[in-house]
Amino acid sequence: MSSEPTAPFATLQQALERGDDQALSEGAAGLNAADLAEFVELNLEGGRGLRLFRALPAERRGIVFGYLEPDVQAELSTLLPMPALAELVTAMSSDERADFFLLMDSVRQHQLSQLLARREREDLLRLASYREGTAGALMSSEYATVGGAMSAGQAIEQLRQTAPETETIYQVYVVDAEHRLQGAVSLRNLITALPGTRVSELMASGLVQAEVETEQEEVARLIARYDLIALPIVDAEQRLVGIVTYDDAMDVAEAEATEDMHKGATVEGLDGSFRRASPFSLYRSRIQWLIILVFANLFTGAGIAHYEQTIADNLALLFFLPLLVASAGNAGAQSATLMVRALATGDVRTRDWGRLLSREVLVAAGLGLTMALAVLSVGFLRAGPGIAVVVALTMIAVVMVGSVVGMLLPFLLHRLRFDPATASTPLITTIADVSGVVIYFSMATALLGLA
Amino acid sequence: MSSEPTAPFATLQQALERGDDQALSEGAAGLNAADLAEFVELNLEGGRGLRLFRALPAERRGIVFGYLEPDVQAELSTLLPMPALAELVTAMSSDERADFFLLMDSVRQHQLSQLLARREREDLLRLASYREGTAGALMSSEYATVGGAMSAGQAIEQLRQTAPETETIYQVYVVDAEHRLQGAVSLRNLITALPGTRVSELMASGLVQAEVETEQEEVARLIARYDLIALPIVDAEQRLVGIVTYDDAMDVAEAEATEDMHKGATVEGLDGSFRRASPFSLYRSRIQWLIILVFANLFTGAGIAHYEQTIADNLALLFFLPLLVASAGNAGAQSATLMVRALATGDVRTRDWGRLLSREVLVAAGLGLTMALAVLSVGFLRAGPGIAVVVALTMIAVVMVGSVVGMLLPFLLHRLRFDPATASTPLITTIADVSGVVIYFSMATALLGLA
Repeated sequence: MSSEPTAPFATLQQALERGDDQALSEGAAGLNAADLAEFVELNLEGGRGLRLFRALPAERRGIVFGYLEPDVQAELSTLLPMPALAELVTAMSSDERADFFLLMDSVRQHQLSQLLARREREDLLRLASYREGTAGALMSSEYATVGGAMSAGQAIEQLRQTAPETETIYQVYVVDAEHRLQGAVSLRNLITALPGTRVSELMASGLVQAEVETEQEEVARLIARYDLIALPIVDAEQRLVGIVTYDDAMDVAEAEATEDMHKGATVEGLDGSFRRASPFSLYRSRIQWLIILVFANLFTGAGIAHYEQTIADNLALLFFLPLLVASAGNAGAQSATLMVRALATGDVRTRDWGRLLSREVLVAAGLGLTMALAVLSVGFLRAGPGIAVVVALTMIAVVMVGSVVGMLLPFLLHRLRFDPATASTPLITTIADVSGVVIYFSMATALLGLA
Repeated sequence: MSSEPTAPFATLQQALERGDDQALSEGAAGLNAADLAEFVELNLEGGRGLRLFRALPAERRGIVFGYLEPDVQAELSTLLPMPALAELVTAMSSDERADFFLLMDSVRQHQLSQLLARREREDLLRLASYREGTAGALMSSEYATVGGAMSAGQAIEQLRQTAPETETIYQVYVVDAEHRLQGAVSLRNLITALPGTRVSELMASGLVQAEVETEQEEVARLIARYDLIALPIVDAEQRLVGIVTYDDAMDVAEAEATEDMHKGATVEGLDGSFRRASPFSLYRSRIQWLIILVFANLFTGAGIAHYEQTIADNLALLFFLPLLVASAGNAGAQSATLMVRALATGDVRTRDWGRLLSREVLVAAGLGLTMALAVLSVGFLRAGPGIAVVVALTMIAVVMVGSVVGMLLPFLLHRLRFDPATASTPLITTIADVSGVVIYFSMATALLGLA
């Protein structure tokens, strides 16, 4: 099966067009929730998405709704009467419910919360209160707990009963009377143990946990590093308040990688699907840095203007200018990107900077030398030995400057607690442009004895 | 707990330095395998890593070894006598064992495989035979199967017994007599069902699976899309041959994102840790595109040389050149990066290109107009109304050309079955440079009536 199940979609499409609710229910029963959500998104026009949605059993509706893009959730929810919406959010998982709740205006938030049972309302309001981008905002409150004094058999029996209300029963938590997290045990260990073994004896060593204020990147990193099914989240008093499951960590890791890639090309603040983004939101996410760089590039223009006379006297120099500044920018983009990504994955830490700098100088010298050799003959043929030597020497210098700046800037931003991904390729290119112009023409005036 | 558990590391470090094997075993028992692997990597000198490694129980050794970077695995393995190595790989999971096996030369491969039990040897050789980057090369052969005719209670009892040999018991597969995959059932469903329920009644609808030849990106995408714990992998005859678990999918997704980011800055073929990469491997991964772009940039130089006389007569034009070509490149880098990432995550598909192109034209016109307004006053003050108008009109044109090229190139590469990530920022910048020079000077000659 591919990620686009075309055959079942076609059957469902026909049922939808015939208005055959019976066939609709049957066709939907054989599809995954993620596929159904995609089908709903492709069939929003003319109330057809709503029709399909209503043909689903109530329990399934909550799951499919959780898979929808936020803008589709918002659109669909305005079409539902409040009681139906309350039924829907009750069927959603607690973390997705809180995310959806935050999409609504405060009037609707109030209306909806009044229709929920007290326990659900309190849970929802608590989960919705955490700062976006933290473990608290990501976590689900539907975790399974067992007592440390229980036997493995008793614990399994308890899990069997509480399973419908939990996000996962594969990782189970042991808490004390004050709900402080004591340890964790996997269902695998519970099942393979002798039924009489105490849970406290089965608890894993080296429990990994995070706090509600932990950044979501760090949450995703912990889950990936320790291959966890779920990460327990505690409050300041070490009380268990939620879990983040591996599937949410995958979504965070993907979103964070997307954000870093976008930042690397000076696109900022574009959340959600690119395909579905409005022209204005795209404009807004792109214009800011483009304007900043327009003004930054005036410095390069000023650098060129400063050497206007040198250029007028030696127009042959101009031929090599784009080549040299571009090479500096390209080498710098490489080292900046390597560094930004290595910092994001945790491969490189701030303390590594000294060793990495010496390695970068060595690598950049090698790159610059090779590139200098590549342009030497072109320089010689086109402009004679003097300019050829200037071009070759400039090449080595600018590639080294570009590379070192590209490497150090992300480190510096990281150290100053800014996002290293701000060291975008266009920013590095601009810095390389300015320094390339200055290095080239000052080298030319010095070596060729120009005015 | 942070991702760097400093306190337990310090205790372990002291035990290592005292040579106290007893304290070493005890300290190691309280740490996660991932942390232990990091500790080994930080303490390779002077045989200390090996010492720690030997202090671990045999079963744990295999797990920790699986977490080590390939180069560390290779280094450590040469220090172990063959029988110890055979014991170690026996304790590893089947997928990590196959990856490690492929690091060794064929002589050592042969020696090692002779020391394994027949079943393990055959399994290892089969897993090691799949093409790198496919589901086959990623999968583990340690999956759990149950019969469709079994009751839930019988299935759980069978899982309890086979658990030690399986990668996960949370997702279980149903196969027929020819080992063809019939369906899947979760342990959650088995546990919550009445013990007498037949497994075939509990099987989930819409089974998601992949073939051994499926690319690993696609495997990771399926696992993320359907929130799977494990994805079953079948051969051409629909026989179940392995599973890929969510934690491996997370590693693949991270590695693929890293590769795409690197490609976006023309770094290619750098596998594994950047921090640990040798200067030569860095040089090799960077030099190829730098040299290609050096020669590509000669076209920009040639473009400038073509207009040498125009420039000589109107040196004021030069001031705005870097600004205009850089703006084209920056806008193009934005649209290319947005498109490359959206294609990689599956957000955008080839069929979307027409709609996205019209949106891009609209957005780029808005961006170009805003940037033109930003430079208009600078142009006016510095070079008078004529050049100001030329600069502003050029800005709109180059931003639109850059954006459209940036958007279409990844699509085109995707369509021609090349990697869209090859549409790197430096490549887009270079194309934008050439077209920027041509557009600017031809507009200047036309509008200002220059020669």
